[in-house]
Amino acid sequence: MRPSIFVVVIGTTDVSLIPGISVAGASPELTHLTPALDVEYLIAGRPLTLDVIPVTPQGIPTPALVTRAVAYDVPKLVVNAGSRWAPKVPYVELGGEPGRDIRFFSAISRDAAGNIVKRGQILGRELGRLGVVYIGESIPGGTTTAMAILVALGYDAWGRTSSASPNNPKELKAAVVKKALERAGRPLDPLEAARQVGDPVHLALAAVALGVAEGGGAPVLAGGTQMAAAAALYKALGGEMSKLHVVTTRWIAEDKNADFWGLMEEVGVRNVHVANVSFAASKHPGLRAYEEGYVKEGVGMGGALFYAQLVGRDVLPLVEAEYERVTATR
Amino acid sequence: MRPSIFVVVIGTTDVSLIPGISVAGASPELTHLTPALDVEYLIAGRPLTLDVIPVTPQGIPTPALVTRAVAYDVPKLVVNAGSRWAPKVPYVELGGEPGRDIRFFSAISRDAAGNIVKRGQILGRELGRLGVVYIGESIPGGTTTAMAILVALGYDAWGRTSSASPNNPKELKAAVVKKALERAGRPLDPLEAARQVGDPVHLALAAVALGVAEGGGAPVLAGGTQMAAAAALYKALGGEMSKLHVVTTRWIAEDKNADFWGLMEEVGVRNVHVANVSFAASKHPGLRAYEEGYVKEGVGMGGALFYAQLVGRDVLPLVEAEYERVTATR
Repeated sequence: MRPSIFVVVIGTTDVSLIPGISVAGASPELTHLTPALDVEYLIAGRPLTLDVIPVTPQGIPTPALVTRAVAYDVPKLVVNAGSRWAPKVPYVELGGEPGRDIRFFSAISRDAAGNIVKRGQILGRELGRLGVVYIGESIPGGTTTAMAILVALGYDAWGRTSSASPNNPKELKAAVVKKALERAGRPLDPLEAARQVGDPVHLALAAVALGVAEGGGAPVLAGGTQMAAAAALYKALGGEMSKLHVVTTRWIAEDKNADFWGLMEEVGVRNVHVANVSFAASKHPGLRAYEEGYVKEGVGMGGALFYAQLVGRDVLPLVEAEYERVTATR
Repeated sequence: MRPSIFVVVIGTTDVSLIPGISVAGASPELTHLTPALDVEYLIAGRPLTLDVIPVTPQGIPTPALVTRAVAYDVPKLVVNAGSRWAPKVPYVELGGEPGRDIRFFSAISRDAAGNIVKRGQILGRELGRLGVVYIGESIPGGTTTAMAILVALGYDAWGRTSSASPNNPKELKAAVVKKALERAGRPLDPLEAARQVGDPVHLALAAVALGVAEGGGAPVLAGGTQMAAAAALYKALGGEMSKLHVVTTRWIAEDKNADFWGLMEEVGVRNVHVANVSFAASKHPGLRAYEEGYVKEGVGMGGALFYAQLVGRDVLPLVEAEYERVTATR
């Protein structure tokens, strides 16, 4: 389960602009910058598009901080499934496009969806030859589109996806999903569901994972409840569930405002791993906030922590040192 | 020396449009499609932008055929340094741009050059953590811009770079280089030289190699005399020559119409490897043509052959089978 390479798939959905949906940015507008800033900071050590590390409106820093701090020696590769802002670090282009507001429009075009699936799978096949491939994500608003994808695929996901906020805005999310499903009509085949009510990222996660498995590697989806949607699409595209892994944080696994385990079981994910870590002893309130339900997952944080603990690293001092480095340069 | 990953850097220069300069395409105009078609075929098994495998005007197929046939199990990653046509397979975007005709214009803008160097280096650092990284290229017209870069950096490269044709158009190339150097003025610092009289690809090769070395890996430039220009830029950017490798084909090493060994020595490349292979016994005239001086190198062919022989593969039957596959589907 040691990763040969760590892939981070980025993209945006206009769903994150709906006030109250996402806290992955200091304001709804800034959520569109978050994926670029996340991966710039992850790879280059500092954000380049703006000199601002992504934070929640309360100032809690991006999970990319944890991923960078504890999985510093794993090669990382950014994959752009469809972002409004292209990052200023090297990234693999899949030919997708940013996701539209699913209440009023199909999320992405047929062409974009076709490119994402074909090219994501091709990329995955190449990377699969390396062995174990961790696949993380950064898409503000993603837990809402994940819920929409799952429901459209026939799973009972109402109110069961997580949130980066301690106060999961479940009613708001469900209202968005309901409106999107009414607009799109049903039944939808899996690809059409992801294209209509999803976003570019979940489709890319599934396609890359499928390619990795085909290339002889082990795909490890590193994320929270959103990965149920990615796994459901992987399964629908013909992926073997015995080859697929999901790894997440304790904060997701224990989240009472969502149902990670129920979703994993319903979708049929057999290999689930949890990074059992606590920031309760941290001297920094911004890190202790993770214990109160802020952030929880993203940018492959659970996978990074799982790997770091596997190789015997004491993660909290690493995270604190990185936290101090980035807050000192502000 | 077994590659963990095989990178192919693609891009174009308008120098390839000058009649007589390049045979990496059936016509000068088609040379601009060659990099995209090369990597589409290499990764996906068939060209996607057009249903045409790149050939010389005589119909001799692209060296990508050999690379695909013999290094089938090595993960491959396409890097776009600046192409007129973006390939329809996943590729890493560096934020460069296509090279202009160096006789009349600076090859690329300062912004593009800056992006290529910074992002190429960042990418290389990540990939360097994987270990040995082979770095090939596809840029029609590249032996002319390579000559221009080398001369601008103070090396005596006049008439010493190779050609994909048995009849190396040395006078024509030298005239282009002379005109470019007159336009650009001298002396030029290395980055400015590459920007003024080079192209996006050589700069990217150097930057990726530099990053790989910094990331703890071994950069292996897989190509012919062009790699002298990439190595010279690597050195100028501060790269350690003891860490750098170049691997090429016997057809380049023995080419009487160029001076591979002299260029390597002058630039200070210490680790040079040659794939000692012959296609003389092939049943296909299109492959025997390699023995007559057609093609010689490109798309990492020498590196692929070197690796395949290292792991004990009988390469000619593999190449012939692939040749038959692609000619049968025409």
